[in-house]
Amino acid sequence: MSERDHHGDKSAPRAVVGRVGLYLRQLESFRSTGQETISSRQLGESLNLSDAQVRKDLAFFGQFGSPGIGYRIDELIGLLKRILGVDRVWPLALVGVGNLGRALLKYRGFRKNGFLIAALFDKSSAMLGQRIDSMVVQPMDRFAETVQAQRISLAVLCVPGEEAQAVADLAVASGVMGILNFAPVALSVPASVEVVDVDLSIHLERLAYHVQNAAGRISEAG
Amino acid sequence: MSERDHHGDKSAPRAVVGRVGLYLRQLESFRSTGQETISSRQLGESLNLSDAQVRKDLAFFGQFGSPGIGYRIDELIGLLKRILGVDRVWPLALVGVGNLGRALLKYRGFRKNGFLIAALFDKSSAMLGQRIDSMVVQPMDRFAETVQAQRISLAVLCVPGEEAQAVADLAVASGVMGILNFAPVALSVPASVEVVDVDLSIHLERLAYHVQNAAGRISEAG
Repeated sequence: MSERDHHGDKSAPRAVVGRVGLYLRQLESFRSTGQETISSRQLGESLNLSDAQVRKDLAFFGQFGSPGIGYRIDELIGLLKRILGVDRVWPLALVGVGNLGRALLKYRGFRKNGFLIAALFDKSSAMLGQRIDSMVVQPMDRFAETVQAQRISLAVLCVPGEEAQAVADLAVASGVMGILNFAPVALSVPASVEVVDVDLSIHLERLAYHVQNAAGRISEAG
Repeated sequence: MSERDHHGDKSAPRAVVGRVGLYLRQLESFRSTGQETISSRQLGESLNLSDAQVRKDLAFFGQFGSPGIGYRIDELIGLLKRILGVDRVWPLALVGVGNLGRALLKYRGFRKNGFLIAALFDKSSAMLGQRIDSMVVQPMDRFAETVQAQRISLAVLCVPGEEAQAVADLAVASGVMGILNFAPVALSVPASVEVVDVDLSIHLERLAYHVQNAAGRISEAG
């Protein structure tokens, strides 16, 4: 394969892994209707991807499916979950217990998909020692010890932009391998660590497109 | 074209619009390095999509690019922004000024990409009348009047799951055409209204995959 991600490692490219998450959601949606098998074409059409693209993406992970039958949905869901690593529970360290951090603590989607906020950190002395969801907000100097003791490898950063790099450095030094970054800055981390920057505007663009397009259709019709 | 979204309208399928947002970010990233033109192959490779898929996605919107030259990056960015409708500012109504709502008010990514929270609503009497960012939190019974006066067509729902459908109904009745839904429920809206459900776990799946895969490589090497 010639197309690899920028890290040059043996894992599938980020964009492919992102699409596997989309495949998983589509498959769960098909399964909920009682459907048992699916072709790469049908799966692709549900996301407007070519069947070749679907097969190529899945081929990063092995040979699935049977000619003429396609994929058994149950089996493929199980495989994709195992591939993504979401067939287990991942404990998360949450850094920054402000408005966003507190909102994420209440966010049910994490737990539903196997992610559990398991430790809270904040640098503000006003927050320290507060108990939220049976967890105590800890100071940053307890970070390394705690994530190692709780075997936490993923951190969620809900800190202001100007603090994010220092927190990322601490997280990396403490053995964190993946960072979900809500701060509006580009983090610099070693190639062995993965960062995902959350970009909520991309969702709004879909809505803007829809509204603009609907308005156009109405004026064309009028 | 045989692949259309479920609304059967003339707009591009949701998945295509989502990828156009990704293309836009990649193009901006290429432009920031000083690059002036790009091929569908290079753009595709940056997202691990085939060049055919990139061309097919863009073909929903017209004929761009020149054989042998590819796309002029500046021109394509401008076109995609116009297509998505993000060459203008979109005012948003934010419903639910709790932790998540307050976090979104501070989120710089919205404004950077042309989205501006322009009106705040909450049903809690404790919130009403509070002034945040020079906006006053208004009661729900002012929703219709306000969004019509301010020509707001997009609403962001940061309300608990059990309240979300009632708020969506009110938004639709008030003329809102697009809803960004953070509540963990499936909203029922007319086909003319677009809903995007925010799923933050999909980002964590990318991190989980990376960590699991890195651990696998380390144990193979050890």
